[in-house]
Amino acid sequence: MKSTTSPHSCQDSSLTSYIMRLLYSLVIALSLSTWLAASDIPLTLNLMPIPAKVQSGSGQLVIDPTFTAASTGARDARLDGGIARLLDDLSRQTGMPLTVRPSDAAHATLTIRAQSAGRKVQELGEDESYTLEINASHASLTAPTALGALHGLQTFLQLVAPTPAGFAVPVVTINDQPRFSWRGLLIDVGRHFIPLEIMKRNLDGMAAMKMNVLHLHLSDNEGFRVESKRFPKLQEGSEGQYYMQAEVRELVTYARDRGIRLMPELEMPGHSRAIVVGYPELASEPGPYKAGRIAQAEPALDVTQEKTYKFLDKLIGEMVQLFPDAYLHIGGDEVDDKPWDSNPKIQEFIHARGMKNNRDLQAYFNQRLQKIVAKHGKIMMGWDEVLHPDLPKTVVVQSWRGQESLAAAARQGYRGLLSYGYYLDLIWPAARYYAVDPMSGGAASLTPEEQQRILGGEACMWSEYVTAETIDSRIWPRLAAIAERLWSPQNVTDPKSMYQRMNEVSWRLGWLGLTHESNYLPMLRRLAGREDIAALRVLADVVEPTKDYTRTEVWPQAPVKTTPLNRLADAARPESRDAREFSELVNTYLQNDQQKSDVEEQIRFFLMAWHDNDAALQPLLDQSLLLAEDKPLSEDLSALAAAGLQALDALDKSQSLPDQWRTEQLAVVKRSNAPRANLLLMVAPAIQKLIEAASPRR
Amino acid sequence: MKSTTSPHSCQDSSLTSYIMRLLYSLVIALSLSTWLAASDIPLTLNLMPIPAKVQSGSGQLVIDPTFTAASTGARDARLDGGIARLLDDLSRQTGMPLTVRPSDAAHATLTIRAQSAGRKVQELGEDESYTLEINASHASLTAPTALGALHGLQTFLQLVAPTPAGFAVPVVTINDQPRFSWRGLLIDVGRHFIPLEIMKRNLDGMAAMKMNVLHLHLSDNEGFRVESKRFPKLQEGSEGQYYMQAEVRELVTYARDRGIRLMPELEMPGHSRAIVVGYPELASEPGPYKAGRIAQAEPALDVTQEKTYKFLDKLIGEMVQLFPDAYLHIGGDEVDDKPWDSNPKIQEFIHARGMKNNRDLQAYFNQRLQKIVAKHGKIMMGWDEVLHPDLPKTVVVQSWRGQESLAAAARQGYRGLLSYGYYLDLIWPAARYYAVDPMSGGAASLTPEEQQRILGGEACMWSEYVTAETIDSRIWPRLAAIAERLWSPQNVTDPKSMYQRMNEVSWRLGWLGLTHESNYLPMLRRLAGREDIAALRVLADVVEPTKDYTRTEVWPQAPVKTTPLNRLADAARPESRDAREFSELVNTYLQNDQQKSDVEEQIRFFLMAWHDNDAALQPLLDQSLLLAEDKPLSEDLSALAAAGLQALDALDKSQSLPDQWRTEQLAVVKRSNAPRANLLLMVAPAIQKLIEAASPRR
Repeated sequence: MKSTTSPHSCQDSSLTSYIMRLLYSLVIALSLSTWLAASDIPLTLNLMPIPAKVQSGSGQLVIDPTFTAASTGARDARLDGGIARLLDDLSRQTGMPLTVRPSDAAHATLTIRAQSAGRKVQELGEDESYTLEINASHASLTAPTALGALHGLQTFLQLVAPTPAGFAVPVVTINDQPRFSWRGLLIDVGRHFIPLEIMKRNLDGMAAMKMNVLHLHLSDNEGFRVESKRFPKLQEGSEGQYYMQAEVRELVTYARDRGIRLMPELEMPGHSRAIVVGYPELASEPGPYKAGRIAQAEPALDVTQEKTYKFLDKLIGEMVQLFPDAYLHIGGDEVDDKPWDSNPKIQEFIHARGMKNNRDLQAYFNQRLQKIVAKHGKIMMGWDEVLHPDLPKTVVVQSWRGQESLAAAARQGYRGLLSYGYYLDLIWPAARYYAVDPMSGGAASLTPEEQQRILGGEACMWSEYVTAETIDSRIWPRLAAIAERLWSPQNVTDPKSMYQRMNEVSWRLGWLGLTHESNYLPMLRRLAGREDIAALRVLADVVEPTKDYTRTEVWPQAPVKTTPLNRLADAARPESRDAREFSELVNTYLQNDQQKSDVEEQIRFFLMAWHDNDAALQPLLDQSLLLAEDKPLSEDLSALAAAGLQALDALDKSQSLPDQWRTEQLAVVKRSNAPRANLLLMVAPAIQKLIEAASPRR
Repeated sequence: MKSTTSPHSCQDSSLTSYIMRLLYSLVIALSLSTWLAASDIPLTLNLMPIPAKVQSGSGQLVIDPTFTAASTGARDARLDGGIARLLDDLSRQTGMPLTVRPSDAAHATLTIRAQSAGRKVQELGEDESYTLEINASHASLTAPTALGALHGLQTFLQLVAPTPAGFAVPVVTINDQPRFSWRGLLIDVGRHFIPLEIMKRNLDGMAAMKMNVLHLHLSDNEGFRVESKRFPKLQEGSEGQYYMQAEVRELVTYARDRGIRLMPELEMPGHSRAIVVGYPELASEPGPYKAGRIAQAEPALDVTQEKTYKFLDKLIGEMVQLFPDAYLHIGGDEVDDKPWDSNPKIQEFIHARGMKNNRDLQAYFNQRLQKIVAKHGKIMMGWDEVLHPDLPKTVVVQSWRGQESLAAAARQGYRGLLSYGYYLDLIWPAARYYAVDPMSGGAASLTPEEQQRILGGEACMWSEYVTAETIDSRIWPRLAAIAERLWSPQNVTDPKSMYQRMNEVSWRLGWLGLTHESNYLPMLRRLAGREDIAALRVLADVVEPTKDYTRTEVWPQAPVKTTPLNRLADAARPESRDAREFSELVNTYLQNDQQKSDVEEQIRFFLMAWHDNDAALQPLLDQSLLLAEDKPLSEDLSALAAAGLQALDALDKSQSLPDQWRTEQLAVVKRSNAPRANLLLMVAPAIQKLIEAASPRR
């Protein structure tokens, strides 16, 4: 029963309507911007990464409790596991009690036919394509290999949606295959150790996004994170934080079950303090070296002595038993000159052999290392710096320097993959990563043969500033954008579509146990030390951690140099959705006369909220040492909002505000664009546009 | 820099101010009611349960990275573990890198001195008291036993709060001890199996609330959840969902480490289908019996045959090896008459022995069972029905029938504990459980000696309608209210204070991994099948699952009778905070002329939000089979809000609305007070008050 009497009690009808619309918008807001985004999202296929070819039909295949799935092709235990997980995920999504039943394959709702089982050890370049055909009564997934079938199952799962008749997948035909054969994520477990269970849920997320390589950066100055039985002092110098060999095997299996290769990296000859803590005789300087996350000059291995090679031979011999993947990454980047320069024996070695400098010495090391790696049946991989004409062409180069460097390697005959532009710890927005293409820049001018050598790319999650608690939020959902770049056709580039789909994908990733969404409010509550964090959230929703490598904090009371990652900069998301959507509104407002009044109302809604927030937030900030550093940000958010409102008022009246006013407001903008408390106030650029529009320079 | 120009662009200043206040309130809302609650919470000690005696001082002890804790008393591995967990929790809360250091006890910030280690197997009635003295430079925790010290550590942790100078605990002296020695939680893992990790995090929550007994309801018609090596068909009939013996041992240790006894319950002679599925020869009717969550008449054991006792002797002999606790619960409730009535041999046995009826037969069974339990060194416990004068006084009675039944047992010399009034699955509000006192009602008139026999109480989480996914939200945070009832002095009864502290405790419990808060939005998103759930949340925030045992649903398309727990009734919280706080506002408004305009504004804010919500929500409800059943609720929320707004308008103008109007509106209220889609619209009673005030009966 609906009431016919108006419930409104205000007199002024236009103002009342304004209140009501604002009220409604606000009331339903989970964050300020959620309601804006909602209306934009078309109820179409939320697939990510976008398949190579999608042909939509009409109608749908209902998913009800009679749903069954059966594999009719080659047997592969991975595929059985994948089907079991599909049913598990479907059950959770629909609430229907679906279980794996020994079903008559001929009558299964979804039949899966892989023409061949995959290789025993998953290989680079294995066929990953699949075809998914859905009609109103049946779905058929076919693939040349079990690997392709696993990807197809993920696509099927993404297609499931609630409908008035229950759950269903649309009638559609999808022919899909990846653009690149190497679609990786590097996780640095050296700087901060990341426990096994967190690695597993990230593997689940990678599988959902059809990624196929987990690159484990296992050693660095701060720790050696894998158990060596031959050299136990390696892990013993890592404060007890490392994977036992049984855990490594478990992780390798877990990854393989999901169509993901697991490639280890043992960093040398630089970034090697964790090695020389226990074995200082391998270093080019005498030491001693201390374990852990401390400040100490970078050591390097002494690559002129034979015992270093004997050590590496034994170590690699042990490690290849743990990691079946065909590739072994030996790091090789950023070797500091100082440890080699300061050792006369090493400099003598360089001159005696007719080498020019330390770079030649590293090349010498890499050649010898490559022979050891090859002897143990592996292909060597390294960062840009390893590239040297004397190395065999089998070596694969991972480029942190960019497409030019990658293209140069390809021209010389080396295979390579791009990581430049995919560093998640630089805290860039998803769209910026999304725009980076391994085949652009220098790579665009390669011959087709040379282009074949560009294998793909790898996102890098370096862990100086992430912990087990925050790592999910630094990887997800932005990694989905990189996953799409590496899988989908080159012409899939629309950031608007990407953001819409990424927003949907993000909460589904939460079902896999990833905490990028669920940890946000608990971290804010912990910072606040109380339940009510509403005002803190308004601020947190519009700041982002500083970009690139500008973070420079230590705990003010710490007795040792250490960085507890427990500040607003750690809780804040890498990308502010409110700021992004506010910026879009301002652009629309300033460019478009048609929608002006609509978007102006929305802009005002944001600005008024921000304007009043500081008064509510200050008592909390005053009360906490951890939050006190954020006071200037809160004050400036308020000041920026006031400036924005004044600008809007002036624009409404077609007035121009004085130069003096503009100068004052732009000073606030300037402050806000610079890092404070390791945070940036992301709404400043859009408000700057309003200020400049309301007070144009004459 | 703050702007001096007013940012407001509206003309009508009072209306503008109204908008601004509403805006502000709304913008910061995480749920509609959060902002209302915030101002009420005093920044005092958020301890729960409230200690027996608290003497506050002035000043505080700073917690900084130099914080250390050392145990100086009796050695007990549990205490070492407790201290390690304290440091772990503190590190997480403060972000400071605290680690267990071999510290000089004399200079530790917190010294813990337990005068004696606890018993090897934790006993009922062990001293649990502790004294916590905090001054500006040092904290001292002393306790007669390690058990008391563990409780004291939880209190210390609750005292830590952020301050302008960092983190600190206040200067305070606390002398604490529990009111009751048995403070338990029953978890029914029989109806729905609950995996080990979920049990563990609930044990963590129990320890935080100083509870000391986990009662595992291990067997019921639907499953036998512990591995028996002697009778493997027990667990084999449980669809593979049971604890392996190694897991039981792990759980026992985990509980003991946290000061919690783990008591098993093996239900007999009723609720025993899971036993007779594999061993039908033990049943009073021939069977066959089917496993799992299906509808089948209740069987009962045939207690007239010797082989039943031989079976039980062997089974109990095996189980006591797994469960070291002194008590063994044998169930004994709700034995159906039918299976015994229908077996002539059993009825003949009853008459031949001069028994009057089936109740006498159960008493005969219990006497024989008690001897078996005692032979294996355990004390028998059972539900009310086991009470019979022929049983020895050692038997402990757990009362689901109430204080009268409990008092009757105490008068006869039996010890007992209360569970009536503490059934969490009845989905009552926390305040209702909080008001239930084991010593009230019939127990109040007991002699002091008889009162000694009232050991305490146990909350019961029966699992017909909970799964691994939802169980946390059905236990927490309401269990905290029961924990306080059983620990704190009898005169601690203020529900307002309890709710304030429970709200704070609730998010801290989330740090332990409990999902009662974090699962809410993901479940709503899954129901919606999309990210934008703002309108759904407004509805979900004001409904509660039906109370008592009124849930009656089956999946509409299911081929078998089954209950997928994946509806709004499963996502909805047991207690609507919005409804509770709205109701308080309405009470204040109707009773108090002083604050009228303030609270009226807040009431309007709720009503306007609800009024407009249906229009936003209907498209989503139309789109989903799972949500379609909630359409009438959404419509009526809107209609109720309209009625409330009309009532407010009339009251403002001191007008009285016509009888016809009242009759129409009360029909909506009536509908809303009845379950639909297993949900209640919790705002109806408060709106009814507004309606009746605006249209009094003449």
